Amino acid sequence: MPTHSRFVTLEGGEGAGKTTVLNALREALREGGDEVVATREPGGTPLAERIRALLLDPSHESPCAEAELLLMFAARAQHVHETIRPALARGAWVLCDRFTDSSYAYQGGGRGIDATWIAALEHRVVGLRPGLTLLLDLDVARGRERTRGRDLVPDRIEAERDEFFERVRAAYRARADADPGRVRLIDASRSADAVAAEAVQLLRAWRADG
Amino acid sequence: MPTHSRFVTLEGGEGAGKTTVLNALREALREGGDEVVATREPGGTPLAERIRALLLDPSHESPCAEAELLLMFAARAQHVHETIRPALARGAWVLCDRFTDSSYAYQGGGRGIDATWIAALEHRVVGLRPGLTLLLDLDVARGRERTRGRDLVPDRIEAERDEFFERVRAAYRARADADPGRVRLIDASRSADAVAAEAVQLLRAWRADG
Repeated sequence: MPTHSRFVTLEGGEGAGKTTVLNALREALREGGDEVVATREPGGTPLAERIRALLLDPSHESPCAEAELLLMFAARAQHVHETIRPALARGAWVLCDRFTDSSYAYQGGGRGIDATWIAALEHRVVGLRPGLTLLLDLDVARGRERTRGRDLVPDRIEAERDEFFERVRAAYRARADADPGRVRLIDASRSADAVAAEAVQLLRAWRADG
Repeated sequence: MPTHSRFVTLEGGEGAGKTTVLNALREALREGGDEVVATREPGGTPLAERIRALLLDPSHESPCAEAELLLMFAARAQHVHETIRPALARGAWVLCDRFTDSSYAYQGGGRGIDATWIAALEHRVVGLRPGLTLLLDLDVARGRERTRGRDLVPDRIEAERDEFFERVRAAYRARADADPGRVRLIDASRSADAVAAEAVQLLRAWRADG
């Protein structure tokens, strides 16, 4: 699977501090004067954002696991086609809040869909991996504590039980173990500022290497 | 791929008279006193109907071909899981307006996605074929003539050009040629009543055989 050196993704569970880290990474990338496209999944185009709304809305029946996976990859196909590939082609950095690793973690680890099928979709529909993925790793109970009271109504995935998020975390850590050159694990139990500083340092070291 | 003898689908292009035929088939199936679930694709559950609305809405950007295919199969996964399998399991007839053959015709023939990939999705996500599929076959120009003026604003797929619908028709006919035991081609150039009468006759003959 080809990787792209200007494509950086951030992954992690609830309460790991992704927003603070994303802002810090965006600022660090902009220092060089390059264009930076900051985007997110599911989402990143008008249609993909509408698919996101379907996925997170708790008001209709829950999608079965296969439908959830295909909705994620439909949104991703559109996002890659409309936003990510054009941005990389014009030389911009793309900084994305979640990408295919999330499907391996949530639909694979969380829902139990086998990784071979997720890999088949990744090869066929995505065909591209980030050059660098920063994974914010945090104890599930600790993450829950941090997000408690943040939203009045949790979205459909936030409403899952702890066992689900334990499986998600284990699948994420397995991604980092299997591909340590791309996926860098960051201990997210410290303050958001400390985590953001380490993320920026990792990004700078990685750019200097490339 | 397993077929189910109480699962009947209707396929065909624009203006072929599907609505009249569906009503006639539903009445014929009900004569036996069995429960008949009449449903449609994309759609057939609240979530799948919302995916349908995304697919047909011309107001946001068009999905790329791969996103369109995955949205169709996401809706189908949900429809099979929530509606079709439970109905067949309790002994009901399921009569469906479009099913997987539509993906081979529209996303395969129409958009040029290779049939091997569509078959991989069918095996993984659907795992079930109708016992009988009635294909209403009609000249593209003739179908266009019949639908002209029916809708003030055509949906996103209706707005395609004639070459697209020629490829859809050719792919549909290839499905009937490849699997004549399941897919029965009906000449839809005659009156809606004549077409419906032939469809009912084919259904009765098929039931008597089973």
